[in-house]
Amino acid sequence: MDEVIADVGPKFLDLYEQEYGIRLNKEDYWGKKIYQINGADHIRNFLFDKGFFADLPVMPGSQEIVRELMEHYEIFITTAAMEFRASLEDKYDWLKRHFPFIHWKNFVFCGDKSVIAADYMIDDHVFNLQTFQGIGLLYTASHNIHETNFIRVNNWEEIRTFFRQELEQGK
Amino acid sequence: MDEVIADVGPKFLDLYEQEYGIRLNKEDYWGKKIYQINGADHIRNFLFDKGFFADLPVMPGSQEIVRELMEHYEIFITTAAMEFRASLEDKYDWLKRHFPFIHWKNFVFCGDKSVIAADYMIDDHVFNLQTFQGIGLLYTASHNIHETNFIRVNNWEEIRTFFRQELEQGK
Repeated sequence: MDEVIADVGPKFLDLYEQEYGIRLNKEDYWGKKIYQINGADHIRNFLFDKGFFADLPVMPGSQEIVRELMEHYEIFITTAAMEFRASLEDKYDWLKRHFPFIHWKNFVFCGDKSVIAADYMIDDHVFNLQTFQGIGLLYTASHNIHETNFIRVNNWEEIRTFFRQELEQGK
Repeated sequence: MDEVIADVGPKFLDLYEQEYGIRLNKEDYWGKKIYQINGADHIRNFLFDKGFFADLPVMPGSQEIVRELMEHYEIFITTAAMEFRASLEDKYDWLKRHFPFIHWKNFVFCGDKSVIAADYMIDDHVFNLQTFQGIGLLYTASHNIHETNFIRVNNWEEIRTFFRQELEQGK
């Protein structure tokens, strides 16, 4: 969910700017998370706040292409929400608002994604893909740019292309 | 979670009694859910209320035996919570309160449990076990007493016995 269909980046850029008066450029945090910049680790604590996840922007193209994929695949949204009690209702409402065409039966709020059974997983975290039994697609985010062990997708257009190829091959 | 480690029965008996002035006996609802008694289906709507899941009693023996099983197995708590937005925080708090020894990483709030990958699943619903790839254990509840297609466990002592046998066989 986060960094694949929900864009967390802009909010952390805002929080960093509020705190330090500087609008970061990509090169300032490329290779890590914004709160992994020296001295900024306390910014991560905003993740625990009610409302943090409520108003995140939708990743461009994700709604349209998820809907397209639903014609061929059963889509589940899995999110490692359990560290953040206050995120549960926010994430639920966000999904209902922005992805109303996905049934609540297909929402999965978990901690450790090794418990997920599926054919494909699109995720920004290598540790989620490492324990996954299916085919993992690594969605590019600042903290994973140096990873080379997974199929990389940089945006939803590339996800569309990947699955068109899979479908052509009868998968 | 519900009807395996959290006992929903007493609350529905109370709600039925408040509504109809009758304390049901087991034989009145044996073979179905309490809200499947003729005319009582609106009682199911209490599941949507904030607080419904907050104060459910713990199923006898479940805490002690889950803790025992954790010495040999990785335990996940999976619950079909997603129909009930108001249940999310209640269920989270309930688990933290009554099963503090289970890490939040191992909580899974979902809808359709077919997305769960595990070796065993203990559940009161046949439809959850039917789509499960591992070994299903059917935890006896009023609505499943006529089912004969799964290994049945009537209480947590029987779960302990089952897994002791599995462990003796090196599983």
